[in-house]
Amino acid sequence: MTTVAAIIKPTADAPFEVGTIVRRAPRANDVVIDVHYAGICHSDIHQAREEWGKAIFPMVPGHEIAGIVTEVGDAVTKHQVGDRVGIGCFVDSCRECENCLAGEEQFCLKGNVATYNGREYDGEPTYGGYSKQIVADENYVLSIPEGIELDVAAPLLCAGITTYSPLKHWGAGPGKQVAIVGMGGLGHMGVKIAHALGAEVTVLSQTTSKEEDGKRFGADHYYATGEEGTLKSLRGRFDLIINTVSADLDIDAYLSTLKLNGSMVFVGLPENTQQFRVFSLVGGRRSLAGSNIGGIRETQEMLDFCAEHGIGSQIELIGADEVEGAYDRVVRSDVRYRFVIDTATIG
Amino acid sequence: MTTVAAIIKPTADAPFEVGTIVRRAPRANDVVIDVHYAGICHSDIHQAREEWGKAIFPMVPGHEIAGIVTEVGDAVTKHQVGDRVGIGCFVDSCRECENCLAGEEQFCLKGNVATYNGREYDGEPTYGGYSKQIVADENYVLSIPEGIELDVAAPLLCAGITTYSPLKHWGAGPGKQVAIVGMGGLGHMGVKIAHALGAEVTVLSQTTSKEEDGKRFGADHYYATGEEGTLKSLRGRFDLIINTVSADLDIDAYLSTLKLNGSMVFVGLPENTQQFRVFSLVGGRRSLAGSNIGGIRETQEMLDFCAEHGIGSQIELIGADEVEGAYDRVVRSDVRYRFVIDTATIG
Repeated sequence: MTTVAAIIKPTADAPFEVGTIVRRAPRANDVVIDVHYAGICHSDIHQAREEWGKAIFPMVPGHEIAGIVTEVGDAVTKHQVGDRVGIGCFVDSCRECENCLAGEEQFCLKGNVATYNGREYDGEPTYGGYSKQIVADENYVLSIPEGIELDVAAPLLCAGITTYSPLKHWGAGPGKQVAIVGMGGLGHMGVKIAHALGAEVTVLSQTTSKEEDGKRFGADHYYATGEEGTLKSLRGRFDLIINTVSADLDIDAYLSTLKLNGSMVFVGLPENTQQFRVFSLVGGRRSLAGSNIGGIRETQEMLDFCAEHGIGSQIELIGADEVEGAYDRVVRSDVRYRFVIDTATIG
Repeated sequence: MTTVAAIIKPTADAPFEVGTIVRRAPRANDVVIDVHYAGICHSDIHQAREEWGKAIFPMVPGHEIAGIVTEVGDAVTKHQVGDRVGIGCFVDSCRECENCLAGEEQFCLKGNVATYNGREYDGEPTYGGYSKQIVADENYVLSIPEGIELDVAAPLLCAGITTYSPLKHWGAGPGKQVAIVGMGGLGHMGVKIAHALGAEVTVLSQTTSKEEDGKRFGADHYYATGEEGTLKSLRGRFDLIINTVSADLDIDAYLSTLKLNGSMVFVGLPENTQQFRVFSLVGGRRSLAGSNIGGIRETQEMLDFCAEHGIGSQIELIGADEVEGAYDRVVRSDVRYRFVIDTATIG
C-alpha cells in the first residue's frame, strides 16, 4: 500500500482539501500510474455535491485521467513502465455477462466498478484521478498514443468517448448531417469528432457566442436555438442529433429537424422527466435514444482516432487550489471547454 | 364517372347511412376495383368522429380494401381485369421526393394522398373502401396473392403492414426476443408475423383473457401487465417491443425490459404527450421509436410473406347496417380481432 496526495471532498457540504489516500499495492495484473492530469467532468460535480443520490465520502473525483506507468504487476502484458496511459469512467467490470463479453463493459449487467464513488468487487471504495497516483487492472487502462499531449488527452477518456461512441454507432460520416446540441465540454468534442468522421456538422447552441470556436473546431453551420424560428427553419435536416445538454428541451421541435430514420441521442442526463408526442416519432420513423460512454475496446479506438486526426480537448489548466472555483464556473457554463487539473500542483 | 353505393358519414355527429358517391372515369394509369371487403381500423373511428382535427365530410372511411379488378386504363401494366387486389392507407404520393424515391411513400415529403378524408393533388376529395367500387392509380394498388382469402386479407393493408414494417426494420427474426404490447387488431397481426419471422414472441396484455388466442397465433409467452411485478420480472429481456396500444403506458418500465441496444417502437398514436426519463435510454443504449404503415414495395412484400405463411387477420364479418355498432365495440376493445365489412351488403 502507498499513501498518495489527493484532492479530497470530505463530505458533500465541505470544500475540497488536499490530503492523502491509500492506494493498494499492485497485484499481478495491476498497473501503477503517476497521474499527470485529471479533467473535471460535470458529473464530478453532481457526485461531489451528492446531487445524484447518496455518495461515498471522503470522495476523490476524477474519471478523465492521463499519466505515466511507473510500475506493473508480474502478469501485466499490455503496458510497460514509461507508457503514456489513461483511465476513464470505470476500472473493472464482471467480464462474464453478455455485455462485457461483447466489449460493452459500460453496460456490465453486474454493474461495473466506477473509477470513484464506487466500490471494487471486494468492497473497497474507489478514488479517482484528482490524485498523484492510481492503481488499476491493466485491462481497464488505455494507451494514449504519441501525438496527443497528456493534458488535452485527459478529457477524451470521458467527454471524448461519450461523443465518439454514439457518432460511430449511429453512422456519422460522409454524406451525413449531424447536429450537436450544446457547445460545452461534451459538445465541443462532438463537433471535432463528427467533423473528423467526415459528417457535415451543425451546432445548435442557445446563442452564437461560441460560433467562431465552433467553426474552428469543424462545424459547418452554427445556429442559435434561442432565436425564434431556428428549429422550424431546419425541418427534416439531420440524420443524427447528439444532445449534450442536460437542460429540458422541446424534444418535439428537435425531432422535427430529423430526416426519415433520424435519431436524437441523449448523452447528458437531465434530472427531470422528459416529454414527447408519439406523432413526432411515427412521422418519419424517428428515434429517441441514449448512449453512455463506451467500452474499453472502443475507447482505445477513439484515442487512436483522435491521435490520427490531431484531436484533443480544448482545456483550461488549473491548480489543486482552484477546483472549487472551477466547479462553480462549470455550473455557470463558464469554461472553454474543459478544466484539467495539473496534478503536479497537489501537495 | 360512375355513381356507386357507399356507407357515408354525412357529418361527425350524424350516423352512417347508405348512399352514393361518384368515382372518376378511369384515367390511363387507373385501375377500377370492385371492392369486396373493407376492414374497420381504429383510425377510421377517430376520423369519422373528427377526433383528430378537422375532417372532410361527407366521409367514406376505409383503407383496408380488398377486391377484384373490373377495368383498367390504357396504360396499365401492373394489373389485369380479374386480378385480386388491395388498397391501403394512401392512393398517391408525389413520386419525386427522396422518401418516395426510396420507396417510403408513407413518408412522402409533399404529403401523400390519403385513401379517404384526403384530397387528390387536383383537389378532389378522396373516398375510401366502405363502398362498392374504388378507382386508383395502378402504382398504389397491391396484388393479393392466391392463398389468402380476400376477407382476411383486407386488414393486412393497414394492420398487417403497420406491424410487419417495424418488425422487419428492427430485425425481428430467429434468436430475437420480441414483445407485442396489446392484443387487438394490430397486436394479433404482430404476433402472427413476428412468429412467422422466426422470433420468440411475448404478448404483454392488460389481462390474460386472450392468452389462448395469442398462443394459437404464435406467441411463446403471454403476460398480464395488469398484474403487479410483471414488467419487473422481465428486466433486460427483449430486443424489440412493438407497442400497439394508444393508452398511456409507464414507458420507463417498458424500457427496462429491453436488452442492450433494444428498441420500443410505437405504432399506435396516443393522444397525450408521453413521458420518459433519459436514464431509461442511456442505461442500455435503448431507443424509443415510431413507425407508420409501410411503402408500396414493402406492403407487397408483406402480402407475399403472409400468403407464403398462411397468415390472414382474424375477422368478424359484418353488414353495412352494423358499422355504427361495430365502431362502439372497437372503442370498447370488444372485437376478435378485426371487423370487416362485406360490401355485398351495401345497397
